[in-house]
Amino acid sequence: MVDDKDDARGRWTDPTYRAGVVDLLGVLAYGELSAFGRLASDAELAPSLDSRVALSRLAALEFGHYELLAARLQELGVDPHEAMAPFVAALDAFHERIDPSTWHESLVKYFVGDSIASDFFREVSAFLDDDTRDLITGALDSPGKTEFVVKEVLAATAEDPVLASRLALWGRRLMGEALSQSQRVAADRDALQTLMMSPGSTAGMGLVEIVEIFGRLTQRHTERMTQLGLES
Amino acid sequence: MVDDKDDARGRWTDPTYRAGVVDLLGVLAYGELSAFGRLASDAELAPSLDSRVALSRLAALEFGHYELLAARLQELGVDPHEAMAPFVAALDAFHERIDPSTWHESLVKYFVGDSIASDFFREVSAFLDDDTRDLITGALDSPGKTEFVVKEVLAATAEDPVLASRLALWGRRLMGEALSQSQRVAADRDALQTLMMSPGSTAGMGLVEIVEIFGRLTQRHTERMTQLGLES
Repeated sequence: MVDDKDDARGRWTDPTYRAGVVDLLGVLAYGELSAFGRLASDAELAPSLDSRVALSRLAALEFGHYELLAARLQELGVDPHEAMAPFVAALDAFHERIDPSTWHESLVKYFVGDSIASDFFREVSAFLDDDTRDLITGALDSPGKTEFVVKEVLAATAEDPVLASRLALWGRRLMGEALSQSQRVAADRDALQTLMMSPGSTAGMGLVEIVEIFGRLTQRHTERMTQLGLES
Repeated sequence: MVDDKDDARGRWTDPTYRAGVVDLLGVLAYGELSAFGRLASDAELAPSLDSRVALSRLAALEFGHYELLAARLQELGVDPHEAMAPFVAALDAFHERIDPSTWHESLVKYFVGDSIASDFFREVSAFLDDDTRDLITGALDSPGKTEFVVKEVLAATAEDPVLASRLALWGRRLMGEALSQSQRVAADRDALQTLMMSPGSTAGMGLVEIVEIFGRLTQRHTERMTQLGLES
Protein backbone atom coordinates (compact mmCIF):
# COMPACT_ATOMS: atom_id res chain seq x y z
CA MET A 1 0.00 0.00 0.00
CA VAL A 2 3.04 2.31 -0.43
CA ASP A 3 1.39 3.88 -3.47
CA ASP A 4 -1.67 4.82 -1.45
CA LYS A 5 0.46 6.46 1.24
CA ASP A 6 2.37 8.47 -1.33
CA ASP A 7 -0.88 9.44 -2.93
CA ALA A 8 -2.28 10.56 0.43
CA ARG A 9 0.78 12.71 1.16
CA GLY A 10 0.54 14.26 -2.24
CA ARG A 11 -3.12 15.06 -1.69
CA TRP A 12 -2.47 16.89 1.59
CA THR A 13 -0.34 19.41 -0.30
CA ASP A 14 -3.40 20.16 -2.45
CA PRO A 15 -5.26 23.02 -0.71
CA THR A 16 -8.58 21.95 -2.25
CA TYR A 17 -8.28 18.44 -0.81
CA ARG A 18 -7.32 19.86 2.55
CA ALA A 19 -10.25 22.31 2.56
CA GLY A 20 -12.60 19.49 1.62
CA VAL A 21 -11.39 17.29 4.48
CA VAL A 22 -11.68 20.20 6.93
CA ASP A 23 -15.28 20.72 5.76
CA LEU A 24 -16.03 17.03 6.14
CA LEU A 25 -14.55 16.87 9.65
CA GLY A 26 -16.37 20.10 10.53
CA VAL A 27 -19.81 18.88 9.47
CA LEU A 28 -19.21 15.51 11.12
CA ALA A 29 -18.03 17.18 14.36
CA TYR A 30 -21.06 19.45 14.50
CA GLY A 31 -23.24 16.45 13.70
CA GLU A 32 -21.83 14.65 16.76
CA LEU A 33 -22.11 17.72 18.99
CA SER A 34 -25.71 18.36 18.03
CA ALA A 35 -26.58 14.65 18.25
CA PHE A 36 -25.19 14.76 21.79
CA GLY A 37 -27.48 17.63 22.76
CA ARG A 38 -30.55 16.14 21.10
CA LEU A 39 -30.06 12.65 22.54
CA ALA A 40 -29.43 14.01 26.01
CA SER A 41 -32.61 16.03 25.85
CA ASP A 42 -34.60 13.14 24.28
CA ALA A 43 -33.41 10.97 27.18
CA GLU A 44 -35.66 13.08 29.41
CA LEU A 45 -38.64 11.59 27.51
CA ALA A 46 -37.60 8.06 28.51
CA PRO A 47 -40.34 5.96 30.13
CA SER A 48 -37.90 4.30 32.54
CA LEU A 49 -34.57 4.94 34.24
CA ASP A 50 -33.12 2.02 32.26
CA SER A 51 -33.90 3.52 28.89
CA ARG A 52 -32.95 7.00 30.07
CA VAL A 53 -29.52 5.68 31.00
CA ALA A 54 -29.21 3.84 27.67
CA LEU A 55 -29.96 6.96 25.62
CA SER A 56 -27.75 9.15 27.83
CA ARG A 57 -24.94 6.65 27.25
CA LEU A 58 -25.37 7.06 23.48
CA ALA A 59 -25.24 10.83 23.94
CA ALA A 60 -22.00 10.63 25.94
CA LEU A 61 -20.56 8.36 23.23
CA GLU A 62 -21.36 10.96 20.56
CA PHE A 63 -19.60 13.59 22.63
CA GLY A 64 -16.51 11.36 22.77
CA HIS A 65 -16.61 11.19 18.96
CA TYR A 66 -16.90 14.96 18.81
CA GLU A 67 -13.74 15.25 20.92
CA LEU A 68 -11.81 12.96 18.53
CA LEU A 69 -12.83 14.99 15.50
CA ALA A 70 -12.13 18.32 17.20
CA ALA A 71 -8.68 17.08 18.23
CA ARG A 72 -7.93 16.11 14.63
CA LEU A 73 -9.01 19.52 13.37
CA GLN A 74 -6.69 21.14 15.92
CA GLU A 75 -3.84 18.89 14.72
CA LEU A 76 -4.51 20.24 11.24
CA GLY A 77 -4.18 23.77 12.66
CA VAL A 78 -7.89 24.49 12.32
CA ASP A 79 -10.14 25.87 15.08
CA PRO A 80 -12.91 23.24 15.43
CA HIS A 81 -15.51 25.95 15.97
CA GLU A 82 -14.58 27.67 12.74
CA ALA A 83 -14.73 24.36 10.89
CA MET A 84 -18.19 23.63 12.31
CA ALA A 85 -19.65 27.12 11.86
CA PRO A 86 -20.72 26.77 8.18
CA PHE A 87 -22.88 23.74 9.08
CA VAL A 88 -24.61 24.92 12.23
CA ALA A 89 -27.65 26.45 10.50
CA ALA A 90 -28.33 23.46 8.22
CA LEU A 91 -27.98 20.85 10.95
CA ASP A 92 -30.02 22.87 13.43
CA ALA A 93 -32.71 23.25 10.77
CA PHE A 94 -32.71 19.49 10.25
CA HIS A 95 -33.14 18.86 13.96
CA GLU A 96 -35.87 21.48 14.29
CA ARG A 97 -37.85 20.11 11.35
CA ILE A 98 -37.54 16.59 12.72
CA ASP A 99 -38.10 17.24 16.39
CA PRO A 100 -39.45 14.09 18.04
CA SER A 101 -42.46 14.62 20.26
CA THR A 102 -42.55 11.11 21.72
CA TRP A 103 -40.04 8.67 23.11
CA HIS A 104 -40.48 6.24 20.21
CA GLU A 105 -40.06 8.97 17.61
CA SER A 106 -36.79 9.93 19.27
CA LEU A 107 -35.60 6.30 19.16
CA VAL A 108 -36.46 5.95 15.47
CA LYS A 109 -34.89 9.32 14.72
CA TYR A 110 -31.68 8.28 16.39
CA PHE A 111 -31.54 4.83 14.80
CA VAL A 112 -32.47 5.95 11.30
CA GLY A 113 -30.78 9.36 11.26
CA ASP A 114 -27.51 8.28 12.83
CA SER A 115 -27.32 5.27 10.50
CA ILE A 116 -27.91 7.30 7.33
CA ALA A 117 -25.20 9.75 8.43
CA SER A 118 -22.80 6.91 9.29
CA ASP A 119 -23.38 5.20 5.94
CA PHE A 120 -22.84 8.44 4.10
CA PHE A 121 -19.59 9.34 5.87
CA ARG A 122 -18.31 5.80 5.49
CA GLU A 123 -18.95 5.92 1.74
CA VAL A 124 -17.22 9.28 1.38
CA SER A 125 -14.28 8.30 3.54
CA ALA A 126 -13.44 5.43 1.15
CA PHE A 127 -12.10 8.11 -1.18
CA LEU A 128 -9.91 9.77 1.45
CA ASP A 129 -6.38 9.25 2.77
CA ASP A 130 -5.86 6.42 5.28
CA ASP A 131 -5.54 8.59 8.41
CA THR A 132 -8.70 10.57 7.76
CA ARG A 133 -10.59 7.42 6.83
CA ASP A 134 -9.48 5.63 10.01
CA LEU A 135 -10.46 8.61 12.14
CA ILE A 136 -13.92 8.88 10.58
CA THR A 137 -14.56 5.15 10.74
CA GLY A 138 -13.45 5.15 14.38
CA ALA A 139 -15.82 8.00 15.20
CA LEU A 140 -18.71 6.13 13.59
CA ASP A 141 -18.12 2.63 14.92
CA SER A 142 -19.72 1.63 18.18
CA PRO A 143 -20.81 -1.98 17.81
CA GLY A 144 -24.03 -2.95 19.52
CA LYS A 145 -24.87 0.59 20.56
CA THR A 146 -28.34 0.55 19.03
CA GLU A 147 -29.51 -2.90 20.10
CA PHE A 148 -31.78 -1.51 22.80
CA VAL A 149 -33.40 0.84 20.28
CA VAL A 150 -34.41 -2.02 17.99
CA LYS A 151 -35.69 -4.01 20.96
CA GLU A 152 -37.79 -1.15 22.35
CA VAL A 153 -39.32 -0.20 19.00
CA LEU A 154 -40.15 -3.81 18.11
CA ALA A 155 -41.75 -4.37 21.50
CA ALA A 156 -43.84 -1.20 21.29
CA THR A 157 -45.07 -1.67 17.71
CA ALA A 158 -45.80 -5.41 18.04
CA GLU A 159 -49.00 -4.62 19.94
CA ASP A 160 -49.82 -1.29 18.37
CA PRO A 161 -50.36 -1.12 14.58
CA VAL A 162 -51.31 2.58 14.77
CA LEU A 163 -47.98 3.40 16.38
CA ALA A 164 -46.24 1.22 13.76
CA SER A 165 -47.76 3.14 10.88
CA ARG A 166 -47.07 6.49 12.54
CA LEU A 167 -43.42 5.57 13.07
CA ALA A 168 -43.17 4.27 9.49
CA LEU A 169 -44.32 7.70 8.25
CA TRP A 170 -41.86 9.35 10.64
CA GLY A 171 -39.03 7.21 9.21
CA ARG A 172 -39.91 8.30 5.66
CA ARG A 173 -39.92 11.96 6.71
CA LEU A 174 -36.51 11.48 8.33
CA MET A 175 -35.02 10.00 5.17
CA GLY A 176 -36.51 12.80 3.05
CA GLU A 177 -35.21 15.55 5.32
CA ALA A 178 -31.79 13.93 5.61
CA LEU A 179 -31.44 13.80 1.82
CA SER A 180 -32.67 17.32 1.18
CA GLN A 181 -30.55 18.87 3.97
CA SER A 182 -27.41 17.03 2.88
CA GLN A 183 -27.92 18.16 -0.72
CA ARG A 184 -28.31 21.74 0.52
CA VAL A 185 -25.09 21.49 2.52
CA ALA A 186 -23.15 20.00 -0.40
CA ALA A 187 -24.48 22.67 -2.79
CA ASP A 188 -23.30 25.44 -0.44
CA ARG A 189 -19.79 24.17 0.04
CA ASP A 190 -17.52 24.14 -2.99
CA ALA A 191 -14.72 22.39 -1.13
CA LEU A 192 -17.00 19.53 -0.10
CA GLN A 193 -18.33 19.18 -3.62
CA THR A 194 -14.86 19.13 -5.09
CA LEU A 195 -13.77 16.56 -2.53
CA MET A 196 -16.69 14.33 -3.39
CA MET A 197 -16.70 14.79 -7.13
CA SER A 198 -13.34 14.87 -8.86
CA PRO A 199 -14.21 13.80 -12.41
CA GLY A 200 -11.42 11.95 -14.13
CA SER A 201 -9.51 11.35 -10.88
CA THR A 202 -9.26 7.86 -9.42
CA ALA A 203 -9.36 9.35 -5.94
CA GLY A 204 -12.66 11.22 -6.21
CA MET A 205 -16.15 10.04 -7.08
CA GLY A 206 -17.80 10.50 -10.42
CA LEU A 207 -21.50 10.90 -11.04
CA VAL A 208 -21.88 7.14 -11.39
CA GLU A 209 -20.40 6.57 -7.93
CA ILE A 210 -22.64 9.26 -6.40
CA VAL A 211 -25.75 7.63 -7.86
CA GLU A 212 -24.57 4.23 -6.63
CA ILE A 213 -23.93 5.62 -3.17
CA PHE A 214 -27.41 7.09 -2.89
CA GLY A 215 -28.80 3.80 -4.09
CA ARG A 216 -26.94 1.97 -1.34
CA LEU A 217 -27.99 4.53 1.30
CA THR A 218 -31.65 4.06 0.33
CA GLN A 219 -31.28 0.29 0.28
CA ARG A 220 -29.76 0.22 3.76
CA HIS A 221 -32.41 2.60 5.06
CA THR A 222 -35.07 0.16 3.80
CA GLU A 223 -33.31 -2.73 5.53
CA ARG A 224 -33.17 -0.81 8.80
CA MET A 225 -36.84 0.07 8.68
CA THR A 226 -37.56 -3.65 8.18
CA GLN A 227 -35.33 -4.41 11.16
CA LEU A 228 -37.52 -2.06 13.21
CA GLY A 229 -40.63 -3.81 11.86
CA LEU A 230 -41.68 -0.66 9.97
CA GLU A 231 -42.70 -0.17 6.35
CA SER A 232 -40.32 2.04 4.41
CA MET B 1 -3.69 1.28 58.35
CA VAL B 2 -4.35 -2.44 58.87
CA ASP B 3 -6.81 -1.58 61.60
CA ASP B 4 -8.85 0.54 59.22
CA LYS B 5 -9.00 -2.26 56.65
CA ASP B 6 -10.15 -4.73 59.26
CA ASP B 7 -12.67 -2.22 60.46
CA ALA B 8 -13.95 -1.71 56.90
CA ARG B 9 -14.35 -5.46 56.35
CA GLY B 10 -16.18 -5.76 59.61
CA ARG B 11 -18.53 -2.96 58.62
CA TRP B 12 -19.50 -4.57 55.33
CA THR B 13 -20.96 -7.52 57.23
CA ASP B 14 -23.26 -5.02 58.98
CA PRO B 15 -26.45 -4.83 56.87
CA THR B 16 -27.20 -1.31 58.11
CA TYR B 17 -23.82 -0.03 56.98
CA ARG B 18 -24.25 -1.74 53.64
CA ALA B 19 -27.75 -0.32 53.14
CA GLY B 20 -26.47 3.15 54.01
CA VAL B 21 -23.65 2.93 51.47
CA VAL B 22 -26.07 1.66 48.80
CA ASP B 23 -28.30 4.66 49.52
CA LEU B 24 -25.36 7.01 49.33
CA LEU B 25 -24.14 5.57 46.02
CA GLY B 26 -27.72 5.60 44.73
CA VAL B 27 -28.36 9.25 45.49
CA LEU B 28 -24.94 10.22 44.15
CA ALA B 29 -25.49 8.17 40.95
CA TYR B 30 -28.86 9.77 40.33
CA GLY B 31 -27.31 13.15 41.08
CA GLU B 32 -24.75 12.55 38.33
CA LEU B 33 -27.33 11.21 35.89
CA SER B 34 -29.65 14.16 36.38
CA ALA B 35 -26.75 16.64 36.33
CA PHE B 36 -25.81 15.12 32.97
CA GLY B 37 -29.28 15.74 31.54
CA ARG B 38 -29.57 19.25 32.96
CA LEU B 39 -26.12 20.35 31.83
CA ALA B 40 -26.64 18.92 28.35
CA SER B 41 -29.90 20.80 28.02
CA ASP B 42 -28.45 24.01 29.55
CA ALA B 43 -25.66 23.78 26.96
CA GLU B 44 -28.30 24.63 24.35
CA LEU B 45 -28.57 28.08 26.02
CA ALA B 46 -24.88 28.75 25.38
CA PRO B 47 -24.12 32.04 23.62
CA SER B 48 -21.25 30.52 21.60
CA LEU B 49 -20.11 27.16 20.24
CA ASP B 50 -17.08 27.38 22.55
CA SER B 51 -19.12 27.59 25.72
CA ARG B 52 -21.63 25.06 24.42
CA VAL B 53 -18.78 22.57 23.96
CA ALA B 54 -17.39 23.40 27.41
CA LEU B 55 -20.70 22.73 29.17
CA SER B 56 -21.37 19.62 27.07
CA ARG B 57 -17.95 18.35 28.12
CA LEU B 58 -18.92 18.77 31.79
CA ALA B 59 -22.14 16.87 31.08
CA ALA B 60 -20.25 13.97 29.49
CA LEU B 61 -17.89 13.95 32.48
CA GLU B 62 -20.85 13.62 34.86
CA PHE B 63 -22.13 10.69 32.84
CA GLY B 64 -18.72 9.02 33.18
CA HIS B 65 -19.05 9.43 36.95
CA TYR B 66 -22.53 7.93 36.82
CA GLU B 67 -21.08 4.87 35.06
CA LEU B 68 -18.45 4.41 37.79
CA LEU B 69 -21.04 4.56 40.56
CA ALA B 70 -23.47 2.27 38.71
CA ALA B 71 -20.66 -0.26 38.16
CA ARG B 72 -19.87 -0.22 41.88
CA LEU B 73 -23.51 -0.80 42.78
CA GLN B 74 -23.57 -3.75 40.39
CA GLU B 75 -20.42 -5.14 42.04
CA LEU B 76 -22.32 -4.97 45.32
CA GLY B 77 -25.11 -7.00 43.70
CA VAL B 78 -27.50 -4.05 43.58
CA ASP B 79 -29.43 -2.90 40.51
CA PRO B 80 -28.34 0.76 40.05
CA HIS B 81 -31.86 1.73 39.02
CA GLU B 82 -33.32 0.33 42.22
CA ALA B 83 -30.68 2.12 44.26
CA MET B 84 -31.48 5.42 42.51
CA ALA B 85 -35.27 5.11 42.56
CA PRO B 86 -35.86 6.46 46.10
CA PHE B 87 -34.10 9.72 45.21
CA VAL B 88 -35.58 10.49 41.80
CA ALA B 89 -38.51 12.57 43.07
CA ALA B 90 -36.46 14.72 45.47
CA LEU B 91 -33.68 15.45 42.99
CA ASP B 92 -36.12 16.14 40.16
CA ALA B 93 -38.00 18.51 42.46
CA PHE B 94 -34.74 20.30 43.25
CA HIS B 95 -33.96 20.73 39.56
CA GLU B 96 -37.48 21.89 38.76
CA ARG B 97 -37.52 24.46 41.54
CA ILE B 98 -34.13 25.73 40.46
CA ASP B 99 -34.55 25.68 36.70
CA PRO B 100 -32.20 28.23 35.14
CA SER B 101 -33.79 30.51 32.57
CA THR B 102 -30.58 32.11 31.36
CA TRP B 103 -27.12 30.95 30.43
CA HIS B 104 -25.51 32.68 33.42
CA GLU B 105 -28.02 31.20 35.85
CA SER B 106 -27.17 27.76 34.52
CA LEU B 107 -23.45 28.40 34.99
CA VAL B 108 -23.94 29.57 38.57
CA LYS B 109 -26.26 26.65 39.27
CA TYR B 110 -23.69 24.21 38.04
CA PHE B 111 -20.77 25.82 39.85
CA VAL B 112 -22.57 26.33 43.15
CA GLY B 113 -24.79 23.25 43.15
CA ASP B 114 -22.18 20.77 42.03
CA SER B 115 -19.71 22.15 44.54
CA ILE B 116 -22.12 21.95 47.48
CA ALA B 117 -22.90 18.35 46.54
CA SER B 118 -19.20 17.49 46.14
CA ASP B 119 -18.34 19.03 49.51
CA PHE B 120 -21.17 17.16 51.17
CA PHE B 121 -20.26 13.76 49.72
CA ARG B 122 -16.60 14.31 50.48
CA GLU B 123 -17.43 15.07 54.12
CA VAL B 124 -19.63 12.00 54.44
CA SER B 125 -17.16 9.72 52.68
CA ALA B 126 -14.54 10.49 55.35
CA PHE B 127 -16.56 8.20 57.62
CA LEU B 128 -16.70 5.32 55.14
CA ASP B 129 -14.46 2.38 54.26
CA ASP B 130 -11.45 3.10 52.02
CA ASP B 131 -12.85 1.59 48.80
CA THR B 132 -16.12 3.48 48.96
CA ARG B 133 -14.32 6.69 49.90
CA ASP B 134 -11.88 6.35 46.98
CA LEU B 135 -14.71 5.67 44.57
CA ILE B 136 -16.72 8.69 45.73
CA THR B 137 -13.71 11.00 45.76
CA GLY B 138 -12.78 9.78 42.26
CA ALA B 139 -16.29 10.47 40.99
CA LEU B 140 -16.16 14.00 42.40
CA ASP B 141 -12.65 15.04 41.39
CA SER B 142 -12.13 16.68 38.03
CA PRO B 143 -9.51 19.37 38.54
CA GLY B 144 -9.93 22.53 36.53
CA LYS B 145 -13.33 21.56 35.19
CA THR B 146 -15.05 24.75 36.32
CA GLU B 147 -12.43 27.32 35.35
CA PHE B 148 -14.39 28.47 32.33
CA VAL B 149 -17.50 28.96 34.49
CA VAL B 150 -15.70 31.36 36.85
CA LYS B 151 -14.20 33.22 33.89
CA GLU B 152 -17.53 33.63 32.10
CA VAL B 153 -19.46 34.75 35.18
CA LEU B 154 -16.76 37.24 36.22
CA ALA B 155 -16.61 38.68 32.71
CA ALA B 156 -20.39 39.06 32.48
CA THR B 157 -20.95 40.59 35.93
CA ALA B 158 -17.96 42.96 35.76
CA GLU B 159 -19.91 45.31 33.50
CA ASP B 160 -23.40 44.55 34.73
CA PRO B 161 -24.22 45.19 38.41
CA VAL B 162 -27.89 44.28 37.86
CA LEU B 163 -26.89 40.85 36.58
CA ALA B 164 -24.47 40.51 39.51
CA SER B 165 -27.18 41.14 42.09
CA ARG B 166 -29.63 38.85 40.27
CA LEU B 167 -27.07 36.04 40.22
CA ALA B 168 -26.23 36.66 43.89
CA LEU B 169 -29.90 36.15 44.75
CA TRP B 170 -29.95 33.05 42.55
CA GLY B 171 -26.93 31.66 44.42
CA ARG B 172 -28.70 32.15 47.77
CA ARG B 173 -31.82 30.38 46.47
CA LEU B 174 -29.63 27.49 45.28
CA MET B 175 -28.00 27.08 48.67
CA GLY B 176 -31.38 27.22 50.41
CA GLU B 177 -32.96 24.63 48.12
CA ALA B 178 -29.92 22.37 48.32
CA LEU B 179 -30.08 22.38 52.12
CA SER B 180 -33.82 21.83 52.37
CA GLN B 181 -33.89 19.05 49.75
CA SER B 182 -30.96 17.23 51.30
CA GLN B 183 -32.61 17.39 54.72
CA ARG B 184 -35.79 15.98 53.21
CA VAL B 185 -33.85 13.13 51.58
CA ALA B 186 -31.99 12.30 54.79
CA ALA B 187 -35.22 12.38 56.83
CA ASP B 188 -36.86 9.90 54.43
CA ARG B 189 -34.06 7.37 54.44
CA ASP B 190 -33.35 5.59 57.69
CA ALA B 191 -30.31 3.81 56.27
CA LEU B 192 -28.70 7.10 55.22
CA GLN B 193 -29.43 8.65 58.58
CA THR B 194 -27.96 5.71 60.42
CA LEU B 195 -24.89 5.79 58.19
CA MET B 196 -24.37 9.46 58.88
CA MET B 197 -25.21 9.46 62.54
CA SER B 198 -23.93 6.59 64.61
CA PRO B 199 -23.84 8.01 68.11
CA GLY B 200 -21.11 6.52 70.25
CA SER B 201 -19.34 4.98 67.27
CA THR B 202 -15.99 6.33 66.16
CA ALA B 203 -16.92 5.51 62.59
CA GLY B 204 -20.10 7.54 62.31
CA MET B 205 -20.77 11.21 62.85
CA GLY B 206 -22.31 12.67 65.95
CA LEU B 207 -24.45 15.78 66.11
CA VAL B 208 -21.37 17.91 66.68
CA GLU B 209 -19.77 16.65 63.46
CA ILE B 210 -22.98 17.27 61.51
CA VAL B 211 -23.17 20.86 62.74
CA GLU B 212 -19.48 21.33 61.90
CA ILE B 213 -20.00 19.90 58.45
CA PHE B 214 -22.87 22.25 57.68
CA GLY B 215 -20.76 25.11 58.96
CA ARG B 216 -17.96 24.16 56.57
CA LEU B 217 -20.40 23.71 53.65
CA THR B 218 -21.78 27.21 54.23
CA GLN B 219 -18.30 28.67 54.60
CA ARG B 220 -17.13 27.14 51.32
CA HIS B 221 -20.31 28.26 49.58
CA THR B 222 -19.53 31.84 50.70
CA GLU B 223 -15.98 31.52 49.37
CA ARG B 224 -17.22 30.28 46.02
CA MET B 225 -19.71 33.12 45.68
CA THR B 226 -16.83 35.52 46.34
CA GLN B 227 -14.79 33.72 43.70
CA LEU B 228 -17.64 34.42 41.24
CA GLY B 229 -17.69 38.06 42.36
CA LEU B 230 -21.16 37.62 43.90
CA GLU B 231 -22.45 38.52 47.35
CA SER B 232 -23.51 35.50 49.36
